[in-house]
Amino acid sequence: MATVGIIGVTGAVGQIIFQLLQERKFPCENIRLFASSRSAGLKKQWNGQSITIEELKETSFEGLDLVISSTPDDIALHYLPFVVQSGGVVIDESAAWRMDPKVPLVIPEVNAAVLGDHQGIIASPNCSTTQLVMTLKPLHEAAGIRRVVVSSYQAVSGAGSAAREELNEQTLSVLQGETKPSKHFSHQIAFNCIPQIGSIKEGGYTSEEWKMVRETQKILSDDNIQISVTCVRVPVQNSHSESVLVETERPVPVAEARSLFENMPGVSVVDNPGESEYPMPVMSNGSDEVFVGRIREDLSCANGLNYWCVSDNLRKGAATNAVQIAEYLIAV
Amino acid sequence: MATVGIIGVTGAVGQIIFQLLQERKFPCENIRLFASSRSAGLKKQWNGQSITIEELKETSFEGLDLVISSTPDDIALHYLPFVVQSGGVVIDESAAWRMDPKVPLVIPEVNAAVLGDHQGIIASPNCSTTQLVMTLKPLHEAAGIRRVVVSSYQAVSGAGSAAREELNEQTLSVLQGETKPSKHFSHQIAFNCIPQIGSIKEGGYTSEEWKMVRETQKILSDDNIQISVTCVRVPVQNSHSESVLVETERPVPVAEARSLFENMPGVSVVDNPGESEYPMPVMSNGSDEVFVGRIREDLSCANGLNYWCVSDNLRKGAATNAVQIAEYLIAV
Repeated sequence: MATVGIIGVTGAVGQIIFQLLQERKFPCENIRLFASSRSAGLKKQWNGQSITIEELKETSFEGLDLVISSTPDDIALHYLPFVVQSGGVVIDESAAWRMDPKVPLVIPEVNAAVLGDHQGIIASPNCSTTQLVMTLKPLHEAAGIRRVVVSSYQAVSGAGSAAREELNEQTLSVLQGETKPSKHFSHQIAFNCIPQIGSIKEGGYTSEEWKMVRETQKILSDDNIQISVTCVRVPVQNSHSESVLVETERPVPVAEARSLFENMPGVSVVDNPGESEYPMPVMSNGSDEVFVGRIREDLSCANGLNYWCVSDNLRKGAATNAVQIAEYLIAV
Repeated sequence: MATVGIIGVTGAVGQIIFQLLQERKFPCENIRLFASSRSAGLKKQWNGQSITIEELKETSFEGLDLVISSTPDDIALHYLPFVVQSGGVVIDESAAWRMDPKVPLVIPEVNAAVLGDHQGIIASPNCSTTQLVMTLKPLHEAAGIRRVVVSSYQAVSGAGSAAREELNEQTLSVLQGETKPSKHFSHQIAFNCIPQIGSIKEGGYTSEEWKMVRETQKILSDDNIQISVTCVRVPVQNSHSESVLVETERPVPVAEARSLFENMPGVSVVDNPGESEYPMPVMSNGSDEVFVGRIREDLSCANGLNYWCVSDNLRKGAATNAVQIAEYLIAV
């Protein structure tokens, strides 16, 4: 039994982590909750017990065995080394540590083996990366992936609870013929598509697009996989969708691909398009699975496979993956 | 001066055709308007003159020189030969005649030359095809396109005015915590993405996806262009977006691509992502242009170019293109 901490417990992902640890009966002896000074002093109910949220400080972490952290990058960069100094292990949801060569970047179903090598900080991947790699893994093992072309349809919840409020309020305004200024997005998100997530980096690609390239290569431990990516924000409250083309060393027939996906833990196939059955954001919300459908041989190359995958970006894309890492650490 | 008819004048596209012919001062001697019996007898104002909508009949077309038709496929298949029998030329927005070898499929900026060969019926392409081909054309001429990978983000207006109402009403219901059944879409469209447009055909691809493949090859007159396509309906009222990867015979640097797009009539470059400037549906609505941005060298292959294009699917994607064909016919 461990003393467990949650950093950022009041955020969109932190709240789900708090809930999942209870639902999944994570073996906590004590739970401690951290947030900014704004939320410090508030109370949350943990299995019938009232827990007071503490202000996050460098000196907060004495006695903690395991911490799950979901904060902006700068907070994670500064505070997490103090968790390690105090003897704790921390699972980080932010992007701050993911590409550090000393930090394992982990999706338990894909590369749990690298967990043995951690030095106190373990990173959980970006939401759009996680669902992609969950579907790439069985194809890569079976047929060797050469190249991936992916376009995303990303929900606003990935930008936080306030962004979700902005979509709802702005949508209502537009329907009432009014305008509502954008705060969390650079443009109107209601009834719009914004082809930018994060800031513009090298080659004109966004930070979100680079995350999908580099994190995928790191998790699959293969820098030879070529990845073309376009990330787009769409007016969906929750759950990301991705249109994926995968080119492999040898052809993967649709029936084999379906079987590979069905045998991948955490992946569910929903693929009966003739009956209008395929994954969609509204049916994915609240689930821990990655859903795959529209599986079909590519029309444009010999060894290509097309599919569509959808997952709850706050759950398997964030909270669930971190809790699964924690469960794995406790089990071994 | 010609006697001009509009078939389907009360539809989402038909209304814009009616408006564009006036705005662009199309040289009509007489205008005649056709719709189903439901709308027959209604009146519309044409340059201050009141025109009564006639019921569409096989015998309707005597004396018409030029007809623009926007109806479901079955109506176009049945009625348009009667226009030709009566000595008229008809420009058809439906999919009924597009792949007929005797029917030119035309985007005036791309392949106006084939207009000389028509036998009375001329087809205007599918909305998602038109904006794609407008951007492919200059790249194909300059560097020879081998392959295109495209994922679409398509607005509901392509499914008609009632579909647009459904998005608005259903969105309001969801915001109020209620449910509203879907009639025009197979699933909830509010705050959702539906990865199916049209019916499922050969290879698990939808009719919309096959249109993009076959119409693109026909318009560019090159069946060797390989096309991988995924079409998705998103909760946007109007204007389609497309994430495009193009592979060419030789590399096309970003600066050259930008210049090729800028020199293509009907295409506008909006590409300053560092200042959050790129095409988006809400800024494209009401324009006749195809907007291109996020132009960048592909990360996954040597001769690849990525970009994002957006266009008003009811205008250049439908009404504007048909009116431009009509103007071309009148001019030559």
